[in-house]
Amino acid sequence: MSAEPKTSQPPVVSHKDYRWEGVDLLPYKEDGTIFKDVTRQILFPGGFDLPVELRYFEVGIDGHSTLERHEHAHLVVVNRGSGKVIVKGRVYDVGLNDVVHIPPMTWHQFRATNGEPLGFLCVVSTERDRPQRPGPEEVEELSQAAEVGEFIRV
Amino acid sequence: MSAEPKTSQPPVVSHKDYRWEGVDLLPYKEDGTIFKDVTRQILFPGGFDLPVELRYFEVGIDGHSTLERHEHAHLVVVNRGSGKVIVKGRVYDVGLNDVVHIPPMTWHQFRATNGEPLGFLCVVSTERDRPQRPGPEEVEELSQAAEVGEFIRV
Repeated sequence: MSAEPKTSQPPVVSHKDYRWEGVDLLPYKEDGTIFKDVTRQILFPGGFDLPVELRYFEVGIDGHSTLERHEHAHLVVVNRGSGKVIVKGRVYDVGLNDVVHIPPMTWHQFRATNGEPLGFLCVVSTERDRPQRPGPEEVEELSQAAEVGEFIRV
Repeated sequence: MSAEPKTSQPPVVSHKDYRWEGVDLLPYKEDGTIFKDVTRQILFPGGFDLPVELRYFEVGIDGHSTLERHEHAHLVVVNRGSGKVIVKGRVYDVGLNDVVHIPPMTWHQFRATNGEPLGFLCVVSTERDRPQRPGPEEVEELSQAAEVGEFIRV
């Protein structure tokens, strides 16, 4: 790791209404994958002895992240609203301060199902592989669990 | 990193009233350093491709963490209440969702100064050095900034 983080952020980055001072509001992804109403803010780009990024994602009401998997893991803490997530072939309710571990090569998708946004902090390695999306056979396999089949958006 | 985290936590660790399901409530430190009314919960012990721990610390009303510095960095997000922190020789107000970067070898101390607990998530490397406490000369040097001298508890 470099000795300094990649930005010149001050030691305290103030927050107001789910925006952080000096932090850009970014599109969730720019690669045309299937998602709906998700934004991204990079709160820590990696640096010092911490080879991880900290991001804040916000899924708008009725929005969803991309259904995907990858070799890298996610460590998530919900810090706004509530919703649901599929992980390890099950659908879970998540709310404020719930922690979600998404292990390597695990299909996952977040949805803001409860009439409020779903916002969460996500820790991820600075060096990581590209996400994979499911093909038709994988969607069929995932959908054998009825609750998952009804839940996923592809 | 090992392929699996060191605990058998489920993918979703539910939260209620600042306790996480199946997560022990630990003393902040067990080494007799100077602190007041602080607890610790380990929400992620490191694992997969993430060589970091995620901890939740809670400083009770009028409590404070140890004034210390170390080679490893901290990445902090406040998720309960508010208070103040000294970092890089200045005292900052912190509240919900504010992010605090504590670079290597930077004196820091959190205090719950606002009549409510101060709770925060803290990301730290799984491999790290022991904290150092200030000696009398370092306390004197820190205290040359009046706001810091009045703030620190040693």
